[in-house]
Amino acid sequence: MDKLKAMGDANVTLQDSSFWSERVQLVRETVLPYQWRILNDTEPDAPPSFTIRNLRIAAKEIDGEFNGMVFQDSDLAKWLEAVGYSLATHPDKELERVADEVIDLLERAQEPNGYLDTYFIVKEPDKKWTNVRDWHELYCAGHLIEGAVAYFEATGKRKALDIVCRLVTHISTKFGPEPGKLMGYPGHEEIELALVKLYRATGDYKYLELSSYFIDERGQEPNFFRMEAEARKDPRHYNFAYSQAHVPVREQETAEGHSVRAMYLYSAMADLAKELDDDSLLQACRKLWNNVTQKKMYITGGIGSSAYEEAFTVDYDLPNDRAYTETCAAIGLVFWAHRMLQIDVNADYGDVMERALYNGVLSGMSMDGKKYFYVNPLEVWPTTANHRHDMASVKTTRQSWFGCACCPPNIARLLASIHRYLYSYDDEGIYVHLYSNSEARWETSGQRVTLAQQSQYPWDGHIQFEVQMERPAEFATRLRIPGWTREAQIRVNGHPIAVNVENGYATVQRQWNNGDQLELILPMHVERVVANKFVRANAGKVALQRGPIVYCVEEVDNGTNLSDIVLKKQLEPEFHVDKEFLQGVPYITVQAWRSSLNSDQNLYLPFDEATERVSTEIRAVPYFSWCNREPGEMCVWLRTE
Amino acid sequence: MDKLKAMGDANVTLQDSSFWSERVQLVRETVLPYQWRILNDTEPDAPPSFTIRNLRIAAKEIDGEFNGMVFQDSDLAKWLEAVGYSLATHPDKELERVADEVIDLLERAQEPNGYLDTYFIVKEPDKKWTNVRDWHELYCAGHLIEGAVAYFEATGKRKALDIVCRLVTHISTKFGPEPGKLMGYPGHEEIELALVKLYRATGDYKYLELSSYFIDERGQEPNFFRMEAEARKDPRHYNFAYSQAHVPVREQETAEGHSVRAMYLYSAMADLAKELDDDSLLQACRKLWNNVTQKKMYITGGIGSSAYEEAFTVDYDLPNDRAYTETCAAIGLVFWAHRMLQIDVNADYGDVMERALYNGVLSGMSMDGKKYFYVNPLEVWPTTANHRHDMASVKTTRQSWFGCACCPPNIARLLASIHRYLYSYDDEGIYVHLYSNSEARWETSGQRVTLAQQSQYPWDGHIQFEVQMERPAEFATRLRIPGWTREAQIRVNGHPIAVNVENGYATVQRQWNNGDQLELILPMHVERVVANKFVRANAGKVALQRGPIVYCVEEVDNGTNLSDIVLKKQLEPEFHVDKEFLQGVPYITVQAWRSSLNSDQNLYLPFDEATERVSTEIRAVPYFSWCNREPGEMCVWLRTE
Repeated sequence: MDKLKAMGDANVTLQDSSFWSERVQLVRETVLPYQWRILNDTEPDAPPSFTIRNLRIAAKEIDGEFNGMVFQDSDLAKWLEAVGYSLATHPDKELERVADEVIDLLERAQEPNGYLDTYFIVKEPDKKWTNVRDWHELYCAGHLIEGAVAYFEATGKRKALDIVCRLVTHISTKFGPEPGKLMGYPGHEEIELALVKLYRATGDYKYLELSSYFIDERGQEPNFFRMEAEARKDPRHYNFAYSQAHVPVREQETAEGHSVRAMYLYSAMADLAKELDDDSLLQACRKLWNNVTQKKMYITGGIGSSAYEEAFTVDYDLPNDRAYTETCAAIGLVFWAHRMLQIDVNADYGDVMERALYNGVLSGMSMDGKKYFYVNPLEVWPTTANHRHDMASVKTTRQSWFGCACCPPNIARLLASIHRYLYSYDDEGIYVHLYSNSEARWETSGQRVTLAQQSQYPWDGHIQFEVQMERPAEFATRLRIPGWTREAQIRVNGHPIAVNVENGYATVQRQWNNGDQLELILPMHVERVVANKFVRANAGKVALQRGPIVYCVEEVDNGTNLSDIVLKKQLEPEFHVDKEFLQGVPYITVQAWRSSLNSDQNLYLPFDEATERVSTEIRAVPYFSWCNREPGEMCVWLRTE
Repeated sequence: MDKLKAMGDANVTLQDSSFWSERVQLVRETVLPYQWRILNDTEPDAPPSFTIRNLRIAAKEIDGEFNGMVFQDSDLAKWLEAVGYSLATHPDKELERVADEVIDLLERAQEPNGYLDTYFIVKEPDKKWTNVRDWHELYCAGHLIEGAVAYFEATGKRKALDIVCRLVTHISTKFGPEPGKLMGYPGHEEIELALVKLYRATGDYKYLELSSYFIDERGQEPNFFRMEAEARKDPRHYNFAYSQAHVPVREQETAEGHSVRAMYLYSAMADLAKELDDDSLLQACRKLWNNVTQKKMYITGGIGSSAYEEAFTVDYDLPNDRAYTETCAAIGLVFWAHRMLQIDVNADYGDVMERALYNGVLSGMSMDGKKYFYVNPLEVWPTTANHRHDMASVKTTRQSWFGCACCPPNIARLLASIHRYLYSYDDEGIYVHLYSNSEARWETSGQRVTLAQQSQYPWDGHIQFEVQMERPAEFATRLRIPGWTREAQIRVNGHPIAVNVENGYATVQRQWNNGDQLELILPMHVERVVANKFVRANAGKVALQRGPIVYCVEEVDNGTNLSDIVLKKQLEPEFHVDKEFLQGVPYITVQAWRSSLNSDQNLYLPFDEATERVSTEIRAVPYFSWCNREPGEMCVWLRTE
């Protein structure tokens, strides 16, 4: 087991005017205030969320009924977590005051024994811990923990941390192998990874033990969910795989069930594998990783190809028009990839992380930060999607909010913490996983070294680093060579050096001096990408990718009936940067054929009567930017000559 | 309005050893006995149907509970109808005795006021006529009428006819514009077309009037289904279009809702248009016909592309892997096409009728007559279809029977009456709609003329006719030139004549002499057929068709991953007849490419690394014959160079 240390808030600073810093700024200036208004039911353009209201009712400050989902608290928890990350890198007194107030409210809502879940406090106080499978109490607790830890790390203030420590102490009285406790685990995983964070924040090993208990117990026989259902006389069929509870986690070899649940579980498994040097958990993670990323992942990094149970299906079943690919699932894949990356030095994790971040995650939020997709299909035909029952989950326009609003605050907390995903280090040096203008600082050879990174990534693959340090020192700088790269070049102080790539990382090991320049050149071309031949949905089709960005075609640029497009063999791709177009998001143009037969042709006709075609230029925009203009058809996979 | 007379039992005899006569024989010798055993719960290889048992309980001859669907009676009614057609062309004392006995049983079950529906007699006697929308009483009555009429026409025996006349008299006391009656119509259309048959069989105009009432009332405001639901305090949402009750029938321009219901409605509309010279009904039929056949029909003649509500969706939405395409819907399309053909002389109706018969209808029954498909998709991937929730309706193997068993007896009654679909006549001569070894007899110029037809159709397009008559007479022989034909030739007594095609029919008008030979030559080639460019599911793909037969590829012949096949530009098709293969069903071979990359290639890879391919020969079998060997993948639409 290689083990790296991820660089956190203290180590990394994003620089302004880069791809990610612009999005972090959007989260800070627009998304957090917008979501706060929604949590408080004061945003005129979105339906009420009831989240803060529920909490005030739970604190007995107002009268009223609980409203919203059983996991409504988690929306606030994720928002608080995002606030923590934002404050960590960009202090803001007013935002901190607002957060302190809501933490005070959480404290007032918490019951004397530590219990804290507004749904059960307000609506079903007698039903606490009676349906851990469906009712999300542990899930909400997990998000509260993550929020509290992030806020503590950012501000040093312990109040939120104390709240969740009391909550976990209460949970410990309810769950465990001891007589009288529930030998159970949550239906929706989340608290497992949160408890690892709480352990890291507090150093208290009991949190790691409780996480480990939840993980080890899952899927054991007799099955907890079966016993729990029998206890409450619930005869309904339940698919244990939906919650990854069909077999013990170490025996799971294929990704099954609800894809977000799976990602949170696998993330916790990776955390525990690292913390406990648990090789059997790590082996399970690796098998599951291969199954997800080699058999069940869309080119966007989206996962979960079935709306039913929001689930994984079978290998290579990746329909584009009915992809569920929940934003949260792509986010969960980033969480998992990042954790794997701290254990195994393998660029595959970074490649998947990058693929998901730039495509299937970012597609979930509009460019103004106020509209969202929960479901991220790779092909949308509005007339059909708005009509067919088996496409009911596909929304053809972005939504201001959702009844089940897990995704919007999830994307906020990920973007607010994006600086944590860029670098790792170990005794030998630094790892650069993602490219974005930033500064990384760490201690090596008894001194503080700064690596400053500068580029126009992901639009340009020329990346420049400068080493800043007081005195010369030897260490390794390991640069991820993305999987999409055909030929990478590296220069040190302007001189090309041999590029030795191992496990996807090019290592430049040398005696570094202050001011040394390191350049990584990853030439970006518009690539035609094909899918494995067993992916039937993409047979005969290609996706256009440039650097890490997957492109799509939209009706607003190319007219209707996008399935009619056939890319030419001579693609003649051009890359365009136009500040006036789509808020400056670069686009590409390519040469293609389209049918010239008029629309009133017969429904079926001989091939030789239908081969007329006209030459045309097609505009493709980054997938993440789709549906930021007029709604209409969208398509990632296109036919090609 | 042109009006033709369809030639019926007395006019047409199928000859042995032809495509259709073999299937009629299968129905007579295997299907009818098999289905009779199922109706009696004595078939060991199928689940019990309870149909006869319900009837005996209703007749108070045994005790017990009702079992099965609310429309269980209709399975028997359709079987009785099939028996009628079979007896009409092939008398069988034993079968007639069995049918007489079951008709006696029906009579004993009928209530004194004429009411007859075992579900309500046995299970819910107080709920009669309280939910005409959902509970199929009028639907079952319609099928009983069709069965009784067919049996009466075959045997001259009136008992069944009297039973349904009493039933309809009872229905007339319940439905109509008079005070105290329900101003309603059935949720599932069927009785409307049955009443026209009853009118034709009895000459009693009141049956036509009742049919007309049901048709004219449908979709009027205030909506009957809304009022009926309010009366029984049923607040559930109901989609009126599901039952074609969203607007009055003459205002319906697009096919909506449940596709079988729609076909039965449109068939009745065509019947009434003809009987009543109702041009507004005919115009509605023509508009709906164009919508169905030019926007919403699969190449197999299958219709209804959504499992949800078993319904039509939007124009050009024809997914192959989730096609619902119920066997009954294709059968209903044949019913409707045949009726339109007696009004408008237009080969388009015959083309669609032929397309559905040879493909989407026949696919519904195994070649041994004992296994069925309810749903007939054009592409099946078992691993996916058996897993995905949105493909739950797709069965990947043929079934011995169904809980809702509408399709098996429906295909039996259509095949047993197939001779009725071949010919029509009018004052000027005869129309040949379908090609199959047969004899047509009719009166013209004061004498009986016989047209004897001989061919190996649908495998060979050379069709020979001989005219048999006592003395010369002039009349027109009008031959449908199928839409798939590229160049038809006609010879009279060996001499080619000019082929003048009008509305799809070639007319040979002359003085005919006894023994005159007429030859129609329709050269059959393997054609690549493409779909309209708006059919996204088929973009870049072709279907192979030869004559009227649509072909498919199966895993048993071509290995797995059929979506990997790319037909070569140089197709080099060969047509094979091999008595040892697939019970002698001819097949074709074509040249194709397949991917040579092994299966462990990456999930996504550059186009230029994935272009290796190998040349191969592909075997394609008629779509109707698929899944008569080992189950596996199947695919109609294939990629092509």
